[in-house]
Amino acid sequence: MEEKKIPYKTYLDESEIPTKWYNVRADMKNKPAPLLNPGTLQPMTAEELYPVFCEELVAQELNNTDAYIDIPEEIQTFYKMYRPSPLIRAYFLEKALDTPAKIYYKFEGNNTSGSHKLNSAIAQAYYAKKQGLKGVTTETGAGQWGTALSMACSYFGLDCKVYMVKVSYEQKPFRREVMRTYGASVTPSPSTSTAVGRKILEDHPGTTGSLGCAISEAVEVATTTEGYRYVLGSVLNQVLLHQSVIGLESKAALDKLGVKPDIIIGCAGGGSNLGGLIAPFMGQKLRGEADYRIIAVEPASCPSFTRGKFAYDFCDTGMVCPLAKMYTLGSGFIPSANHAGGLRYHGMSSTLSQLYHDGLMEATSVEQTSVFEAAEQFARVEGILPAPESSHAIRVAIDEALKCKETGEEKTILFGLTGTGYFDMVAYEKFNDGVMSDYIPTDEDLQKGFDGLPKFPGNV
Amino acid sequence: MEEKKIPYKTYLDESEIPTKWYNVRADMKNKPAPLLNPGTLQPMTAEELYPVFCEELVAQELNNTDAYIDIPEEIQTFYKMYRPSPLIRAYFLEKALDTPAKIYYKFEGNNTSGSHKLNSAIAQAYYAKKQGLKGVTTETGAGQWGTALSMACSYFGLDCKVYMVKVSYEQKPFRREVMRTYGASVTPSPSTSTAVGRKILEDHPGTTGSLGCAISEAVEVATTTEGYRYVLGSVLNQVLLHQSVIGLESKAALDKLGVKPDIIIGCAGGGSNLGGLIAPFMGQKLRGEADYRIIAVEPASCPSFTRGKFAYDFCDTGMVCPLAKMYTLGSGFIPSANHAGGLRYHGMSSTLSQLYHDGLMEATSVEQTSVFEAAEQFARVEGILPAPESSHAIRVAIDEALKCKETGEEKTILFGLTGTGYFDMVAYEKFNDGVMSDYIPTDEDLQKGFDGLPKFPGNV
Repeated sequence: MEEKKIPYKTYLDESEIPTKWYNVRADMKNKPAPLLNPGTLQPMTAEELYPVFCEELVAQELNNTDAYIDIPEEIQTFYKMYRPSPLIRAYFLEKALDTPAKIYYKFEGNNTSGSHKLNSAIAQAYYAKKQGLKGVTTETGAGQWGTALSMACSYFGLDCKVYMVKVSYEQKPFRREVMRTYGASVTPSPSTSTAVGRKILEDHPGTTGSLGCAISEAVEVATTTEGYRYVLGSVLNQVLLHQSVIGLESKAALDKLGVKPDIIIGCAGGGSNLGGLIAPFMGQKLRGEADYRIIAVEPASCPSFTRGKFAYDFCDTGMVCPLAKMYTLGSGFIPSANHAGGLRYHGMSSTLSQLYHDGLMEATSVEQTSVFEAAEQFARVEGILPAPESSHAIRVAIDEALKCKETGEEKTILFGLTGTGYFDMVAYEKFNDGVMSDYIPTDEDLQKGFDGLPKFPGNV
Repeated sequence: MEEKKIPYKTYLDESEIPTKWYNVRADMKNKPAPLLNPGTLQPMTAEELYPVFCEELVAQELNNTDAYIDIPEEIQTFYKMYRPSPLIRAYFLEKALDTPAKIYYKFEGNNTSGSHKLNSAIAQAYYAKKQGLKGVTTETGAGQWGTALSMACSYFGLDCKVYMVKVSYEQKPFRREVMRTYGASVTPSPSTSTAVGRKILEDHPGTTGSLGCAISEAVEVATTTEGYRYVLGSVLNQVLLHQSVIGLESKAALDKLGVKPDIIIGCAGGGSNLGGLIAPFMGQKLRGEADYRIIAVEPASCPSFTRGKFAYDFCDTGMVCPLAKMYTLGSGFIPSANHAGGLRYHGMSSTLSQLYHDGLMEATSVEQTSVFEAAEQFARVEGILPAPESSHAIRVAIDEALKCKETGEEKTILFGLTGTGYFDMVAYEKFNDGVMSDYIPTDEDLQKGFDGLPKFPGNV
């Protein structure tokens, strides 16, 4: 009974918080395709990116060679506010499922943003401050990223302007107040405060918004306001780099316990959590040192990995951003308002897209009712009320554990519990009332998005 | 610079979670006065309490002699779901205040109830289950207790009926959904579903409710429904006993760090958190082994310690419960609807009342605008968005730290951060909008409550 020694929660020591981020691109044989200038179709240079992003973050974005990048001391100090996050052995869930599988999850929800987003927010705010900027603009969907950025900006005394996807703004009235408490301004998107917002509203009256729209607005404000830059909470290489602290801590804790996972599961919207969680494990896999089954879980209502095209596409709906090569549903794709919570982005991290394309990871999609069933079961036995996003990973972790029950295999499963659902009670209420429904886009629905993909030789 | 070695967060090992609760009454020379039967004015016997409370809990309620009581293994296992809770050195706050004071706080908010309430909820649910009951009824104010009890009942498969103070039910729409997600039923109080609720509504049409009302309703349902008992989240001796895990863990962590606090601060509504936090320190003080300044902080709008009478009073508005000797504003006292959040109870734990009466602790009251100012400052530097209740303690901790800045004294302050404010955003919104106001009852307001105190020789 070796596992009896494994505690419910494993906290690393503060001195064991990573001092370097791990850059998985350094170990990839096939690097993620570069961002392209939509005008010239040439790779974006650092200089071309400076009007949008801080210089240091541009360097991180373009760095495909350095495996480790130092975490500045100021960021390490901030990390001590809420890190290390616990690695939890899901004894209660295992018992409820009566499975021989051993389930672990890395819980990133123990901070006020309620998610892992703070890991990158503080880094991006730090570099903005270091560059002498006045403030930053961003988009937020479910609200975690906006909250995280508000906290980070408050810490460094930066102004913070958040464009929040309208459907989330309405479903999560209290998220706005958390951001305001940290001093941020919050605008529902699309709004009439930007040219691109006005155009989107004209073309799609009554739209409930999307991350793609909100990004367009935030980028417009950043590039037209002196002393501001744009920051993004997912998708970008730099974000996956910062989020590698999740995986590095997870691996350090598992190594301490003498445990090697067989399956690693994460929810995937733009890829920030999944990319961070799997980073060091994928590194081992790329270097041929170890093998793991890695599963990305996405909503059936926004299935970029499982039903998207691997092509160059705009990162935003307004088509003001560079082109990224990724699994995408088209920058015009807007998920049904029926879909609750985050994981609403039309595309996917270029890094993860390349890894998926190369067969180094799997992807699956799940429907929202089954996601909330998993969420409720998890909440009742493990005590943590999970975010809808995180619950996608819970769904598949439970399914894999139940397969082990069938086969008798004692597999070790690790999943990322990205956050808590305290601001998602409108969605839980629908589920509790039995009026939650599923939505799966038809092939025709998806074709409309694909029709908007940039047309140039070799694309699509 | 010895303190440099002290980490931001100190987590005990799971094996260091207390295995016994500490019963401070055993060390009190002047025991808390016994509960009285309102009919006979004689001390309530165990048999008289059995229709209301589980038998084991009655035994704990009446036990003034055993200093340590074993925590059943099932409860110890559940505690591992979310305990040990961290003891946090407030380095960020100290820096922001530029104070020589050393500030520590015990953070009990890292669980879905968002507070320390789960410590007693799981114990009470366990004993109900052990006694073969079908379910329990309770009241909840701010909602933490109701959520905690829902979680505990879900874990043991017990039915859970919650009467929620109407003003909180309306201010915190999502609290209800969390409780429902854990399978509880939630009724706004006063309601028409009980005789006592109907009477209160008739006497006070349009009332926004109070804990005292909700208790009356929950007790009525428990005592008139087969297989049900009533459970209470504060005030009672048994609750303070269970909550002693907070203080025991705090003291164990401080001892490990080699730190002795000079001042211990806790918010006080019914006394559950304060009584738990101070328990082992008060024990030392009672036994003459150490001295501490201990400060109870209550809202100026519900000032039972600082402006109440030390007298026998009903525990509930409907006057169906036993009489308890305590600092009280009268069981008819209902705090202004202007008052946000919890700490709305008209009375105070008999144990804490006796300790306060004997000069073993201090009490102070603070106004709500200054409480939210402290909450915002704390959130921005320490990252945790605190519950309004907890922020009462933050206010006084900050004030004491600022006094140290004046005097240059390097005092060590410990306060209890009972929970998070994620479900209190209606109140935060008022504060953010600058429309929060303070309310201090006049002497005439209070006199009305005192006029309702039970009249018998020696009382009042």
